[in-house]
Amino acid sequence: MNTNKNFILKGEIAFSLNEKEIQTYHEGYVVCKEGICLGAFPDLPEEYKYFPLIDCGNHLIIPGMTDLHVHAPQYTYRGIGMDLELLEWLNQHTFPEEAKYADTAYASKAYSYFAEDLRRCFTTRAVIFATLHNQSTINLMDQLEATGMITYVGRVNMDRNGGEKLQEESAEVSLQGTREWLDTIQGKYKNTFPIITPRFIPSCTDALMQGLGKLSEERNLRIQSHLSENKAEIAWVKDLVPSSSCYANAYEMFHTLGDNNRPAIMAHCVYSDEKEIAILKKHGTFVAHCPESNMNLSSGIAPVRKFLEDGLQVGLGTDVAAGSSMNLIKTMLCTLQASKMYYRLVDTNVKALTFEEVFYLATRGGGKYFGNVGTFQNGFEFDAVVIDDSKMHSMRNMSIRERLERMVYNDSDCIIMDKYVKGKQIYYHE
Amino acid sequence: MNTNKNFILKGEIAFSLNEKEIQTYHEGYVVCKEGICLGAFPDLPEEYKYFPLIDCGNHLIIPGMTDLHVHAPQYTYRGIGMDLELLEWLNQHTFPEEAKYADTAYASKAYSYFAEDLRRCFTTRAVIFATLHNQSTINLMDQLEATGMITYVGRVNMDRNGGEKLQEESAEVSLQGTREWLDTIQGKYKNTFPIITPRFIPSCTDALMQGLGKLSEERNLRIQSHLSENKAEIAWVKDLVPSSSCYANAYEMFHTLGDNNRPAIMAHCVYSDEKEIAILKKHGTFVAHCPESNMNLSSGIAPVRKFLEDGLQVGLGTDVAAGSSMNLIKTMLCTLQASKMYYRLVDTNVKALTFEEVFYLATRGGGKYFGNVGTFQNGFEFDAVVIDDSKMHSMRNMSIRERLERMVYNDSDCIIMDKYVKGKQIYYHE
Repeated sequence: MNTNKNFILKGEIAFSLNEKEIQTYHEGYVVCKEGICLGAFPDLPEEYKYFPLIDCGNHLIIPGMTDLHVHAPQYTYRGIGMDLELLEWLNQHTFPEEAKYADTAYASKAYSYFAEDLRRCFTTRAVIFATLHNQSTINLMDQLEATGMITYVGRVNMDRNGGEKLQEESAEVSLQGTREWLDTIQGKYKNTFPIITPRFIPSCTDALMQGLGKLSEERNLRIQSHLSENKAEIAWVKDLVPSSSCYANAYEMFHTLGDNNRPAIMAHCVYSDEKEIAILKKHGTFVAHCPESNMNLSSGIAPVRKFLEDGLQVGLGTDVAAGSSMNLIKTMLCTLQASKMYYRLVDTNVKALTFEEVFYLATRGGGKYFGNVGTFQNGFEFDAVVIDDSKMHSMRNMSIRERLERMVYNDSDCIIMDKYVKGKQIYYHE
Repeated sequence: MNTNKNFILKGEIAFSLNEKEIQTYHEGYVVCKEGICLGAFPDLPEEYKYFPLIDCGNHLIIPGMTDLHVHAPQYTYRGIGMDLELLEWLNQHTFPEEAKYADTAYASKAYSYFAEDLRRCFTTRAVIFATLHNQSTINLMDQLEATGMITYVGRVNMDRNGGEKLQEESAEVSLQGTREWLDTIQGKYKNTFPIITPRFIPSCTDALMQGLGKLSEERNLRIQSHLSENKAEIAWVKDLVPSSSCYANAYEMFHTLGDNNRPAIMAHCVYSDEKEIAILKKHGTFVAHCPESNMNLSSGIAPVRKFLEDGLQVGLGTDVAAGSSMNLIKTMLCTLQASKMYYRLVDTNVKALTFEEVFYLATRGGGKYFGNVGTFQNGFEFDAVVIDDSKMHSMRNMSIRERLERMVYNDSDCIIMDKYVKGKQIYYHE
């Protein structure tokens, strides 16, 4: 265990310079000083020669990854009911399971599996949905804080269409519960932040949406939700908010899209068209691209190339449990595969995303939501993952770039050796 | 290690009854007698009470899986160059690497990685491409025979478009080499069978194809090749064999599609239309569906639902290295995801494959190529895999069907404990 505040990792280093370029250093150095990265170097600069050096040998050293969209209470039933589409899956699997989180003891046990597995994966930052239960949500936040991860956690709001067991009595009850949750955790955590979380328009009446928009402004809190994931969902939203010009406009009408200083996260955006893209851009919204989920639930494929060309903020989300794993490496692979299928089956004028672009999305793209996070440039917060990929035999010396790509295409054959969040080691392989 | 000839496995059993139904037995029994399965049972029949019983506890016990299409010499560079499409990828990565297999020592080392990892995965039967080098191919066959797996291995034929280093001088040289290979291994193996392997039409002149068709008939050997994988490839074949009515017809013209008693395997069939399907059906050809490869190389998605409705024989192929892993569980997941995307993006009238159907394809669908293989019904050869999925915590008792689905969606979280091929244990977890 490395407990130094200032230190150097030496090894096979890779990080994004921008969306198109990955910088690599063979036997390179990345320097951490009090949680901040002072840069990565092919040769160690003179001024850091007295920092303790941890030699990671032939291991890969990459920036930590950001999961912009994951549902903690869905973790323990991931990979079930995947022959269904979104609305059926929510009613048959998700809502009955989330209702159980009224029982804090149940939640505490289930969340312990989630928190521990999150600590062990490539993710260093995450933005998380809990349930509509205050005590269970606080229990989750306590457990996340203990891991050393840096996260946003949302106590979910739902006052319609959740069935008997997963629905609050009224908009006011839901808002009051949210205020109580926020008051209870005020000042409690260093690394675990609250985020306002209307599940999606079908779960929240106009009154609740308006109240949440107002609450987020009053308390200067960010918002997360779901947008344009599934065709039946989109049609439903149009019925529920007939005055909206599109799904994104419905969120906009309720002042729940925030702005560049308080950006919202909208998960999916599979069917976001020009009009919707313009709205998201205006508000500085982050798109959480969740391709595994979108394939598993037959939702479709989001036009990520278009989002990037239009200057939207985009990161990746595992979307457990519609995504089956918290492994962002797997999400990277699905991002590549989905993008290739979009090119092949939808529009051959839209080039597939490159490996470089997808590596950027997983690290720096989502990391931006947390500020200077997601790469090894000078001044960034020091999030890093050290990886042993030696289980994959090769017949020649591979470049670092080749090893990175091989790792993504063979997610299960790599071992995470160490993980750092803001300079603190929060995991090591035993 | 279980060295009994007759024995019973007890545990959580699942196997296909047909394309639509998975039979499961909680604390059930599956009986093996001299390599043959005598059936699976909820209660142990009286007549087997004296067979040694191996209690697998809460582990899953499923039939072994068949990989209908995998390239052994590509294994050590899997997951590289995946931003390319087929023809560029072959020229930049595959052909230069396969040329190295002229060196038998190089091949021997590389094939040892392949053979050992194949022994450790869900696959119990495989149909394999080697290279055009006789000694290296024989080395591969020696190593595979030692694993206890049951396989077909093809010494590849190529007399055009392989570049300087991976091309035989003439059709006659290629045919003569193939005959020598067959003569050398005559009677050498119990579980490793030769298969005639023209790489694909662009690699083989008409004279070579005709010669291979004749050779396969003379020696009563099966044939494997590639069909309709990529649009540029298909256009090229049309140029190369202008008299053919379609790509499949080109194979048919050269008598390389065999018949029901000597069925060919054609990998991919992404763009096989009604005409091509009719040809494949007429010859009893097996389609090796390789969805991970087809997504990775932006090839497209094969219409598997259509193949099944039309009564084609279909199994799964990993297609390493265009597929990145020999893990057929991962191929199952890609089959599901690709099928859902075909439904969503190509034709909403074509329903996505169900989990039951994909489990069938991985076990019994491909297993049929080897005869009575791929399920636990009475009289089938006893191929079985025992799996520990306890690493995936759950908050309730899951049905065996749920555990199977969860395993496929979380391929990396399961441990193979034991593997049996035709009643012989060839692997156990240490």
